[in-house]
Amino acid sequence: MEVTKNTAVPYKIYLEEHEMPKAWMNLRAFMKNKPAPFLNPATKKPCTFEDLQAVFCDELIRQELDDTTPYFEIPEEVQAFYKMYRPAPLVRAYHLERYLDTPAEIYYKFEGNNTSGSHKLNSAVAQVYYAKQQGLTNLTTETGAGQWGTALSMACGFYGLDLTVYMVKVSAEQKPHRRAVIETYGGKVVPSPSTTTEVGRKILEENPGTGGSLGCAISEAIETARNTPNCRYVLGSVLNHVLLHQSVIGLEAKAALDKYGITPDIVIGCAGGGSNLGGLITPFMAEKLQGKNNIEFIAVEPASCPSLTKGKFAYDYGDTGRTTPLMKMYTLGSGFMPAPNHAGGLRYHGMTSTLSQLYHDGYMTARSVKQTEVFEAATLFAKVEGTLPAPESSHAIRAAIDEALKCKETGEKKKILFGLTGTGYFDMTAYTAFNNGTMTDYVPTDEDLKKGFATLPQIDL
Amino acid sequence: MEVTKNTAVPYKIYLEEHEMPKAWMNLRAFMKNKPAPFLNPATKKPCTFEDLQAVFCDELIRQELDDTTPYFEIPEEVQAFYKMYRPAPLVRAYHLERYLDTPAEIYYKFEGNNTSGSHKLNSAVAQVYYAKQQGLTNLTTETGAGQWGTALSMACGFYGLDLTVYMVKVSAEQKPHRRAVIETYGGKVVPSPSTTTEVGRKILEENPGTGGSLGCAISEAIETARNTPNCRYVLGSVLNHVLLHQSVIGLEAKAALDKYGITPDIVIGCAGGGSNLGGLITPFMAEKLQGKNNIEFIAVEPASCPSLTKGKFAYDYGDTGRTTPLMKMYTLGSGFMPAPNHAGGLRYHGMTSTLSQLYHDGYMTARSVKQTEVFEAATLFAKVEGTLPAPESSHAIRAAIDEALKCKETGEKKKILFGLTGTGYFDMTAYTAFNNGTMTDYVPTDEDLKKGFATLPQIDL
Repeated sequence: MEVTKNTAVPYKIYLEEHEMPKAWMNLRAFMKNKPAPFLNPATKKPCTFEDLQAVFCDELIRQELDDTTPYFEIPEEVQAFYKMYRPAPLVRAYHLERYLDTPAEIYYKFEGNNTSGSHKLNSAVAQVYYAKQQGLTNLTTETGAGQWGTALSMACGFYGLDLTVYMVKVSAEQKPHRRAVIETYGGKVVPSPSTTTEVGRKILEENPGTGGSLGCAISEAIETARNTPNCRYVLGSVLNHVLLHQSVIGLEAKAALDKYGITPDIVIGCAGGGSNLGGLITPFMAEKLQGKNNIEFIAVEPASCPSLTKGKFAYDYGDTGRTTPLMKMYTLGSGFMPAPNHAGGLRYHGMTSTLSQLYHDGYMTARSVKQTEVFEAATLFAKVEGTLPAPESSHAIRAAIDEALKCKETGEKKKILFGLTGTGYFDMTAYTAFNNGTMTDYVPTDEDLKKGFATLPQIDL
Repeated sequence: MEVTKNTAVPYKIYLEEHEMPKAWMNLRAFMKNKPAPFLNPATKKPCTFEDLQAVFCDELIRQELDDTTPYFEIPEEVQAFYKMYRPAPLVRAYHLERYLDTPAEIYYKFEGNNTSGSHKLNSAVAQVYYAKQQGLTNLTTETGAGQWGTALSMACGFYGLDLTVYMVKVSAEQKPHRRAVIETYGGKVVPSPSTTTEVGRKILEENPGTGGSLGCAISEAIETARNTPNCRYVLGSVLNHVLLHQSVIGLEAKAALDKYGITPDIVIGCAGGGSNLGGLITPFMAEKLQGKNNIEFIAVEPASCPSLTKGKFAYDYGDTGRTTPLMKMYTLGSGFMPAPNHAGGLRYHGMTSTLSQLYHDGYMTARSVKQTEVFEAATLFAKVEGTLPAPESSHAIRAAIDEALKCKETGEKKKILFGLTGTGYFDMTAYTAFNNGTMTDYVPTDEDLKKGFATLPQIDL
């Protein structure tokens, strides 16, 4: 069947303010096979509200544990914040289509038009709002690449909460400007490991010269949250309530496409912890789970950290320090050490349990790509579509281009939607390495994978 | 008369694609007192097309010299590029209004949602398009803070022209990431002064340790344009054709406000060379010149470089090297050395001749503000409106806040529109200085001003 390529669509589709989502969509409520519950590592029993209360905000725990309520109303104050930087545009990549000379139609949802530079702000605003509602005055978190720390600092600056960000020491040193943005919004940055926590002091004693790690920063942030009055710890990915908040990405994208009667054939997102991909696919996948569409969903991960494509579906810890609840997910083992890759946001050993379950049940496919291929796509995209993409987002661009080129071979006029999660302004070291030809590719050896799997906990259920 | 504050306006007004301007508006065509013509410094006669042809593109010279044609059609290819990052949102600053508790309505036109980070891209695209149409293959320019160089590199990357950017050496060293963005789009960056030009070699011989200056970078870029086949020099501000292209800012802003029946009482913009302010006010000022409104226009300049508020209305050179045509403008003298100020884009000794004439004729007012006051406003704006503004843009924010606070005193419900020209991601050194309390204010002494005025050329007409 010959389908005419739709050229009546504008370059950018913006929803009207009154068309913006008023409720988040809970993907788990639409799944027959629910993600397995988190387990308390001490009891090996499913986590209760009380198990989590010392560390997390009450309302966020309620959202976390609820896998049946299909929609959660977005509080009006959160909607008012969203209106400052949303709706995010749904862009038709006409220039890229022309450059590739493909019969495919390429669309992307662009989440980088805010100062945090990524989609992370969608959940940060919600989390800080609920913390304030609960009467909390302080929050702690960790940040590596810095986008989550920036987003959270913006939200705390707006709502007037104190924030301490444990920033991986090497990142704090290499990215002083990222740190300065966080501080401008009022966040306090502590390079981790630090002497402000017991775990930090212990690590420094054992290894005075360390540049830190995300695992260590998480442990410091949690310890400080436990020991500070009116304080909780917040996290920017992996957890169910984060995916819930990120559903605004998919809800807006679907509403924009629906205006023009478009159903994508393929939906593509980069996948680290899974929050952006989970948010993007939510309304589309909910329909697929109800047999209403047959969209192909593709998770794209770095070849250096291939949790879906090479990992095991097992219970594992969320952090290298093995302090979190146990989560059933595709994982390389919490002790897996991903080789250096410039997409810091994708260097995570596991994958959020919702996406892991969907992948396991065959509703989603996954592929891994090498970083030089990713930056080739990123540079091309920058030149023909104008926007300099974040390295993480560029994994999705790579796959979208590959799919569009396949269509060129076959003549298929597929409609491809991908998530452009953010911009690369603070990732220029990576671009410079690519421009200079000094960027290399990393793929874990069988030995590396074996070492990672050896750190999986032994769980008897 | 009691006017009810209009709260039916959405947070962001986006034009539909078909509502975007299809022609640029030439403000000079609406002026009874035209800006005085540029003079050839050798003959002291008005510049002819031929005088300018060795350095500038033909079509741009035509636009430059035309002060009667009211509209210039925007070529379709330029419109197609505009559609990638425009329309720019017209934002109602509800959160800022609430924070200030003012009866005023505050609106801003945000031009920072593109990778160059500012409005500069509006003219870059047009200039590169015309260069390509003329069959040119190479362009040269200079850049200081880097926004113009980035914008031009993006446009050259898109249209496939070679670009050499003479970047003030101290900027190239202090802002390696800005340089990396330019290079990612394919632009070649040469730290200036360099050994690639005669003028550069001469300066290096006399002063081997110099960090360079904008004046020197301009001279190198012009020399290279003259000596390279199929090459011209392009400029990002001050000139009439740049103001013409920037009229899209004002045309979009007016169309968005017209949708809601809003005429601003005050329009505010920061002013360095004048391209953003000139573009923003164009359609509003054209109506004022026809007696159709009584809007107050306010140019805001740094106290350290007060060309309108402290300068002389006289013929002067556009560059410190005294190689450009003579322009009648408010100027501090081409030899005026502005004290260090973090708003690099506003450190210019003169003001575009169109705005100078309008100011001289009483159609516009001007004020200068100190940089610590500017960063105070910038930081407040970032926290309550979410976007981290460029230091340049923050001069307009300062004045808008001041006007809104005046309304709080008087109870007036004025409608204030200002231009938010860009974002501050690459200006974090300045924010860090402000956050640390190490930022200082500079105001030129009478002696400084006298030294600058002494460099004004003696013109007998």
